[in-house]
Amino acid sequence: MIKVGIIGATGYTGVELLRLLSQRDDVEIHVVTSRELAGQMVCSHFPNLRGHIELKFSGADSSLVKECDVVFFATPHAVAMHSVPSLIEAGVKIIDLSADFRIKNIALWESWYKTEHACPEFVKEAVYGLPEVNREAIRSARLIAVPGCYPTAIQLGFLPLLENNLIDSNRLIADAKSGVSGAGRKAVEDYLLCEATQSMKAYGVTGHRHHPEICEHLNLISASEVSLTFIPHLAPMIRGIFATLYAPLKDGVDMKLQQLQSVFEDRYVSEPFVEVLPTGELPATRDVKGSNKCIISVNYVESTRMIVVLSAEDNLVKGASGQAIQNMNLLFGLKENEGLDGIALLP
Amino acid sequence: MIKVGIIGATGYTGVELLRLLSQRDDVEIHVVTSRELAGQMVCSHFPNLRGHIELKFSGADSSLVKECDVVFFATPHAVAMHSVPSLIEAGVKIIDLSADFRIKNIALWESWYKTEHACPEFVKEAVYGLPEVNREAIRSARLIAVPGCYPTAIQLGFLPLLENNLIDSNRLIADAKSGVSGAGRKAVEDYLLCEATQSMKAYGVTGHRHHPEICEHLNLISASEVSLTFIPHLAPMIRGIFATLYAPLKDGVDMKLQQLQSVFEDRYVSEPFVEVLPTGELPATRDVKGSNKCIISVNYVESTRMIVVLSAEDNLVKGASGQAIQNMNLLFGLKENEGLDGIALLP
Amino acid sequence: MIKVGIIGATGYTGVELLRLLSQRDDVEIHVVTSRELAGQMVCSHFPNLRGHIELKFSGADSSLVKECDVVFFATPHAVAMHSVPSLIEAGVKIIDLSADFRIKNIALWESWYKTEHACPEFVKEAVYGLPEVNREAIRSARLIAVPGCYPTAIQLGFLPLLENNLIDSNRLIADAKSGVSGAGRKAVEDYLLCEATQSMKAYGVTGHRHHPEICEHLNLISASEVSLTFIPHLAPMIRGIFATLYAPLKDGVDMKLQQLQSVFEDRYVSEPFVEVLPTGELPATRDVKGSNKCIISVNYVESTRMIVVLSAEDNLVKGASGQAIQNMNLLFGLKENEGLDGIALLP
Amino acid sequence: MIKVGIIGATGYTGVELLRLLSQRDDVEIHVVTSRELAGQMVCSHFPNLRGHIELKFSGADSSLVKECDVVFFATPHAVAMHSVPSLIEAGVKIIDLSADFRIKNIALWESWYKTEHACPEFVKEAVYGLPEVNREAIRSARLIAVPGCYPTAIQLGFLPLLENNLIDSNRLIADAKSGVSGAGRKAVEDYLLCEATQSMKAYGVTGHRHHPEICEHLNLISASEVSLTFIPHLAPMIRGIFATLYAPLKDGVDMKLQQLQSVFEDRYVSEPFVEVLPTGELPATRDVKGSNKCIISVNYVESTRMIVVLSAEDNLVKGASGQAIQNMNLLFGLKENEGLDGIALLP
Repeated sequence: MIKVGIIGATGYTGVELLRLLSQRDDVEIHVVTSRELAGQMVCSHFPNLRGHIELKFSGADSSLVKECDVVFFATPHAVAMHSVPSLIEAGVKIIDLSADFRIKNIALWESWYKTEHACPEFVKEAVYGLPEVNREAIRSARLIAVPGCYPTAIQLGFLPLLENNLIDSNRLIADAKSGVSGAGRKAVEDYLLCEATQSMKAYGVTGHRHHPEICEHLNLISASEVSLTFIPHLAPMIRGIFATLYAPLKDGVDMKLQQLQSVFEDRYVSEPFVEVLPTGELPATRDVKGSNKCIISVNYVESTRMIVVLSAEDNLVKGASGQAIQNMNLLFGLKENEGLDGIALLP
Repeated sequence: MIKVGIIGATGYTGVELLRLLSQRDDVEIHVVTSRELAGQMVCSHFPNLRGHIELKFSGADSSLVKECDVVFFATPHAVAMHSVPSLIEAGVKIIDLSADFRIKNIALWESWYKTEHACPEFVKEAVYGLPEVNREAIRSARLIAVPGCYPTAIQLGFLPLLENNLIDSNRLIADAKSGVSGAGRKAVEDYLLCEATQSMKAYGVTGHRHHPEICEHLNLISASEVSLTFIPHLAPMIRGIFATLYAPLKDGVDMKLQQLQSVFEDRYVSEPFVEVLPTGELPATRDVKGSNKCIISVNYVESTRMIVVLSAEDNLVKGASGQAIQNMNLLFGLKENEGLDGIALLP
Repeated sequence: MIKVGIIGATGYTGVELLRLLSQRDDVEIHVVTSRELAGQMVCSHFPNLRGHIELKFSGADSSLVKECDVVFFATPHAVAMHSVPSLIEAGVKIIDLSADFRIKNIALWESWYKTEHACPEFVKEAVYGLPEVNREAIRSARLIAVPGCYPTAIQLGFLPLLENNLIDSNRLIADAKSGVSGAGRKAVEDYLLCEATQSMKAYGVTGHRHHPEICEHLNLISASEVSLTFIPHLAPMIRGIFATLYAPLKDGVDMKLQQLQSVFEDRYVSEPFVEVLPTGELPATRDVKGSNKCIISVNYVESTRMIVVLSAEDNLVKGASGQAIQNMNLLFGLKENEGLDGIALLP
Repeated sequence: MIKVGIIGATGYTGVELLRLLSQRDDVEIHVVTSRELAGQMVCSHFPNLRGHIELKFSGADSSLVKECDVVFFATPHAVAMHSVPSLIEAGVKIIDLSADFRIKNIALWESWYKTEHACPEFVKEAVYGLPEVNREAIRSARLIAVPGCYPTAIQLGFLPLLENNLIDSNRLIADAKSGVSGAGRKAVEDYLLCEATQSMKAYGVTGHRHHPEICEHLNLISASEVSLTFIPHLAPMIRGIFATLYAPLKDGVDMKLQQLQSVFEDRYVSEPFVEVLPTGELPATRDVKGSNKCIISVNYVESTRMIVVLSAEDNLVKGASGQAIQNMNLLFGLKENEGLDGIALLP
């Protein structure tokens, strides 16, 4: 029985961790913390959990946290980094869903997150929790930095192309559309139903924090320097990320769609949560609502020599909490898909 | 291993049966039929099932159907009644999600469904599959008529009041709001996104087929004749039924909210899928999206002596496929909640 | 040229006043105030107004306000009452969209709004701005209290029945569904897209501030005491109120649907903004999105002797800003429909 | 008084033409045709028009059509081309909202629309109705081909860059997101609320009919050959197109964002319906819901030398019916913005 703690569980990644973990036989939810809601029943905050979880929120400094085998941080950035060193010292494994340990370049992280990093030495140690790239390192990690929602969908889409050196890595474009839950459960005017529904818009065009994260990790596997234009959009829906990825086929490379399809299929044939769609079938975010899958379609526009990869995931599952649990499963030697095979809710 | 067949599985109750059944160890999905899609992969019609179901649709007359232990009919009305007699003769248990066996009064049924009933003798035998009322009869049934979505939410809301003879049964009102999936997956103009989203409307005000079903079954448990005004509404959302039930406290009965609350809590204390909310908490359909629960709140307006019961369910789960499986579990002596404890997807 | 001021114009009723007024030739928008946004361009807060309004928000205490012919208060409750006396003294006409002057019974108002009324003497003078009832009084008013959104839809639905003494006035029910914009443009968690979309719920079941307002005004025209059960609901859409009204036909009254239809048609035949639908056509809120109409359908359920009136309006137009301008038109002797004939946006 | 006919007015562009035209003093709606609805009241099909239009639908072959000064075709493709020659001969001006006359290259048109063109000689004569490019030609045209919704948003975004030869015209990308109304009012399963809401997807990745239209017309104003990757997406909303346009700054060109901003502002300074947003403000489709504007934001990503233009419009207004009327205004020497200055409905 794995003793689990969840820090800052009042948002959407928190409730999703609880949904996915609370019915497992091999996991005990030992403590769930919240600054504001300490003392309240978890299920009165998240009515879907009524009858499934009897816990109350504990305060952020609950002593129960150190008793856990593993602790998930579902906190805003710059929170986890203050607790991680002492928890690791206490022998607690850390799975951080926030941004604190995702970027190795400390200066870069500090410039984007506008604060000094509290424990840069742990950044070095942290394993980037994308199992499709770092599976072995994850198994023996003490500290896992779960990738962001955009970075997961985008990296999984570009990976096979970069690993095989098929594309012009300095002319990549990621046009990504996210559901509103990506903004979290914060009372902010922009995310009111009356503001966000029935509308599309772009945001963060002068820079988004996931950009340096994506580039750093793509560069680790790319033969040539990656240069990426990344434009995130807000789509009028609750869940889902749909990434449309544009990658020019390298000069001199001659490939047909069928071969590109094989490159993707070969790359992901053993991956439990990446599904390469048959040629001609296209993904939609509804196909993965509530599931831990990332579904990918490869397309090729001959007239412009442009490979167009479509990558869809549920931002709260494969883009956050589901992926975090996938990491936990690896960390504890469990079946990687344990508790993660739930089928998407359609319609 | 229970061999299951699903007839007419191309709509929303069909895909929901498949979602809920396909991952069970004790169930084998033996055959899935469709007139139009025979020969096609189930998962190319329902992409959420990719990787979970490898079957193709069979034709409606597949011989595999008779090999099943139990067959679910997810067909429009007036289909099941033509196949049920021979299947029952072949020893197959029937769980019919359509309306064919819900109403005992054949003439009434025929006037509402505008066709002659093909096997009235089986209507007599059929058990109305509302476990909260008919649990024991269900266990030994050969033919189960699963209640409609409105009838489930409305009956569960009125039941404790009628059983305890607390209300004026001839002045009941059910103002019910349904998500659009209740209309099924039919290419009908009225249910296009551009027609149905961002709008509320009533329909069926001159009569809805669920009205006689509700009244017949409420009358079975009511001491005095039930007279009900039932107005269904279309709400701009995919899933969910929200029923607002108005029941005048009987003249001469003196009750406080607290006592009414106890009446409901006592009635449903052992029910796995009916949840009476604490006084002051109100249900929302989002709290049960994808789950098999019906959540109920009891309220009392003193100035008008009106009991207001709020009842919310997912029309495709407790209002259809989940309830059908709950019946199957009872029918085969399994745990009633087997495969039905999935937590609602929130947000 | 009528000089208009709008106080507290940063919410949805504010922008709707500006949309409806800014293109009129006979109106000059003289001042638009906001505490938080003073000094900012109106159109950078409301991008739909770019190119239509060049004004900046003024501070709440701008001296421009007293120069106006008429001032609209689009403020939360308990704000207008502090400014009204001095403005009226200065000769400014007041159209208050808030609740401050809607209820004549001061004690009742104070108990619901939990504050002492600042100018009860003006409550007596205020004319309740429902033109269908108070047209003549409005023309000569100094101070108009515009009805709330629920009260407009509900009163217009019950009026013909009460005026003609056809119903059991102590057994009325109003089951009303509102779009989320009724809650205003406030950064409140409950109204986030991820909280409010794809869900239906009831709220305010223990009492809603519009209840005493409705009852007070219905009683003014009813022969017998009105007793009303009112349950408001939140529907997952931006705009619209859909009220389903239940009124038992009085004992001894014998009426057919056709006669009831005539009662409604006769009552509203000259009303520019109330439309009685032909028998058999039912309203939907989408039919009035952006327009100043209230559309009404009369139905009769013989088996329960229940009249069911369906009343739909755009809560921000006929339920607020449009109606306010309708009052302004009357107040200044203009055509009542001046600037208000815009056609609903469909789809 | 201009006598107007609308052919095939049962879809969304039809109702939008009627909304925009029916309240004008200088226009008489002389005939509205529909094959299926001939003889029915227009307002019973489009309830928003009740009280505004008293007409019935006429049959497709009504003799009234030839009496018109101008006829709008709101038909599917390959319909208008059969009637245009005889109407022009009869002296009727034609504004075709369908695709029949948009592409000059007949063979190309025929390969995309899979039918033989019925009157290629009129294709040559037809003026492409993008006023921002062809204003003078429009004034004296007999036959106008109104651009498609995607082509309008995309061309207006690329135009200033191509006209000034600032970008690498053979590496253009248009990632466009459309509301569901773009698919028309057809009872097709894919556009049911339950299928299309709460989901994002791409479609037409192997080719979309608007692609050759865009390229042909961009090439007319580009110094070097245009090569465009165009990926359309379906967004879960009723109205709106949001185009994210990627244009690499030409090698050797040195420009800052401020200069690019000026290029756009200069290009559109006199355009009544193209609005270049100030640097730093970003468009959203909600800002133009129901209005005839196209709003554009210019952005520059220095690290990748990529110009990112964001272009938003209402697909049914500037993308169809509003633009058609803008053409009519030019054609008849009226003020170009006559009847088109309606403010977007927000929220």
